[in-house]
Amino acid sequence: MLSNVPGMPRSARAPITGPAAATVFTTVLTEGPVSRVDVARRTGLSSAAVTKAARPFIEAGYLEELASGGRTAPGAGRPANPLAIRPDREYFVGVKITGDDLIGVVTDLRADVRASARHALTGHDVGHVVRALADLAGELLSDPGVRDRAFCVGVAVSGDVDRVSGVVRYSPFLGWRDVPLAELLQDATGLTTTLENDVKALAVAEKWFGEGVGASTFALVTVGAGIGSALVVDGRVLRGAYGVAGEIGHVPVAEGPACSCGGQGCVEAIASGEAILTRARQVTGEPALSMADAVTRARGGDEPLREVFAAAGHAIGLGLAALVNLFGPERVVVSGEGVATYDLFEEQIRRTFEVHAFGSAARCRLAVRPLPFEEWARGAAAVAIQGLFAADRG
Amino acid sequence: MLSNVPGMPRSARAPITGPAAATVFTTVLTEGPVSRVDVARRTGLSSAAVTKAARPFIEAGYLEELASGGRTAPGAGRPANPLAIRPDREYFVGVKITGDDLIGVVTDLRADVRASARHALTGHDVGHVVRALADLAGELLSDPGVRDRAFCVGVAVSGDVDRVSGVVRYSPFLGWRDVPLAELLQDATGLTTTLENDVKALAVAEKWFGEGVGASTFALVTVGAGIGSALVVDGRVLRGAYGVAGEIGHVPVAEGPACSCGGQGCVEAIASGEAILTRARQVTGEPALSMADAVTRARGGDEPLREVFAAAGHAIGLGLAALVNLFGPERVVVSGEGVATYDLFEEQIRRTFEVHAFGSAARCRLAVRPLPFEEWARGAAAVAIQGLFAADRG
Repeated sequence: MLSNVPGMPRSARAPITGPAAATVFTTVLTEGPVSRVDVARRTGLSSAAVTKAARPFIEAGYLEELASGGRTAPGAGRPANPLAIRPDREYFVGVKITGDDLIGVVTDLRADVRASARHALTGHDVGHVVRALADLAGELLSDPGVRDRAFCVGVAVSGDVDRVSGVVRYSPFLGWRDVPLAELLQDATGLTTTLENDVKALAVAEKWFGEGVGASTFALVTVGAGIGSALVVDGRVLRGAYGVAGEIGHVPVAEGPACSCGGQGCVEAIASGEAILTRARQVTGEPALSMADAVTRARGGDEPLREVFAAAGHAIGLGLAALVNLFGPERVVVSGEGVATYDLFEEQIRRTFEVHAFGSAARCRLAVRPLPFEEWARGAAAVAIQGLFAADRG
Repeated sequence: MLSNVPGMPRSARAPITGPAAATVFTTVLTEGPVSRVDVARRTGLSSAAVTKAARPFIEAGYLEELASGGRTAPGAGRPANPLAIRPDREYFVGVKITGDDLIGVVTDLRADVRASARHALTGHDVGHVVRALADLAGELLSDPGVRDRAFCVGVAVSGDVDRVSGVVRYSPFLGWRDVPLAELLQDATGLTTTLENDVKALAVAEKWFGEGVGASTFALVTVGAGIGSALVVDGRVLRGAYGVAGEIGHVPVAEGPACSCGGQGCVEAIASGEAILTRARQVTGEPALSMADAVTRARGGDEPLREVFAAAGHAIGLGLAALVNLFGPERVVVSGEGVATYDLFEEQIRRTFEVHAFGSAARCRLAVRPLPFEEWARGAAAVAIQGLFAADRG
């Protein structure tokens, strides 16, 4: 499946030596094929600086120059010939850690998934998770042609993650506090490891390779077991001065019910998967009702159950209005495993949003998309790709 | 009051010729006195680039070099000697337009107010307002020593203001739509004119000369006739992809009452001056109750009236929690004419904020400050100072 490039030693990584190199490479990666002239125009660099910055990437096999007709034209160096990424030049491992399992992918430089695998977790002991993740990475990189060009792994975890220090500060699902996971994984896998909060990782993938391309500000909202969001301004994910930002799940929109965070009437207290199921059991008086049954019966027209989903949609719509009125994004992507039942709340989300969006903020486009679990792992791989450009890549 | 600098022709403006010049001048303006070595360290520029960028500012009288002891050391050029701004080198006019009057100030380069004046408006006709503003500017600049060093006016208006085109898109208080005010004022005053939304103008003043200095992200919230906010990320005020951002007054926090924006339960529908008065008249059954009386009686212990103010404080606290949980600012400044009665809602604002701030977001500092009306005009002057650095300064 994966073609090999002979003569590329394992140590040959993308030659990102400074800001100009990073800017040129990012531009070709996310917007290419694009000519040197256009790169210069879009980045404000001089043509000479673009040519100089591009050369080492061409020599190392990361970029190639296309002739006008799209063929490769090595060494020609005409400023108007488009530069293109060679996506197979480097591979990246991305892993999402959930409470139940590890979901892993291998992607190319464009974050296109080339292989995926899943390992169940039998416990949340840090050592066990580290070993399981190293095994999964080994399996994903079993092809030598892939392994020889993979240097980085990105790992996505829900909760409070400090990307810079590589520490999981708090993960409710895993019951972890202050685990130096990046260092442990680096030792166990030999791969440069970047940790990120899972929603922020998805936002990175959207920003570079999805709805966020070309949008100066956008938001990604995930709906499922939890409700979260990531806000991107000028290409950067807001992290919050105290590590908290994008917590749309904890925007207060009603007087009740109580939320696990200690607040009242948070979006998540009304619209999370668990909140919906709890309410569905209350209104039906069936304490053993399953989510699957609640969904089936709501779709079949059960009015009290339909109202439970509509109330969740109303709460999400209020949260979206708060987000859009405060933050003013160009686009919002709504995604997450909850989107599988989105037919039950989409109408109410949109209606509530339209009522509460202020003035021309109502023009903000809501794009609704399913989110297969593999996408979370792809987000983690996108973080690893982004890690190419971090000064401390190591 | 104002010292004159002989030999400075009126046309001599700050020689901001490119990004390095702007960066160096801004750093000395907002953080000086600061040595060239420290400017280089803080900006990432080379020492040689800082020295080269600083020289024209010293020659034009905008910056001066201090000896280690604080004395002026012309021409010495030692990299470790601090550079300081000469605040009197240029003056700026700032005007806030309200429905009732114009409030104007003259400030120096540091936005310190040197003089102020107020003109009543007898109508909202555009021509009348332009003439009144030109008269006010003439009065503020009647001292030739000031006039000869004033080139720019900043104007702050509430509503939807397009700073780039200089157009007031919509001002509810003035009843204006699509008024090209900057061009009209430029013709009438001869001063380079920059328009800005009034809350954003205040945020610019805070960012450069107030609580925002040194904070990567902060928010300014104003409480009064309306409730608004401005969010600053990496030194830039968020403007919203569709011109809407920071609308904390239109974050929905309750099921009701109806808001003028068409929504329900917006912060402003509960906590604006008018909303408080309406509710106070309802609970007392006194349709002619004045705000002054409501405040006096609430301070005197009238429980139903105290509850009206507490409900407003609760709504503001919920809006602040939404803002902080989504945006994660380092600090929030709460200000506005409503702060004069802040004793009546502060406790409830802080209590509600603490309950609903998510995790470590509760560490965000809320600074509460009175806002004399002159401050709005000072904000407008800060926008004019910031206009020095705009490429299209003209």
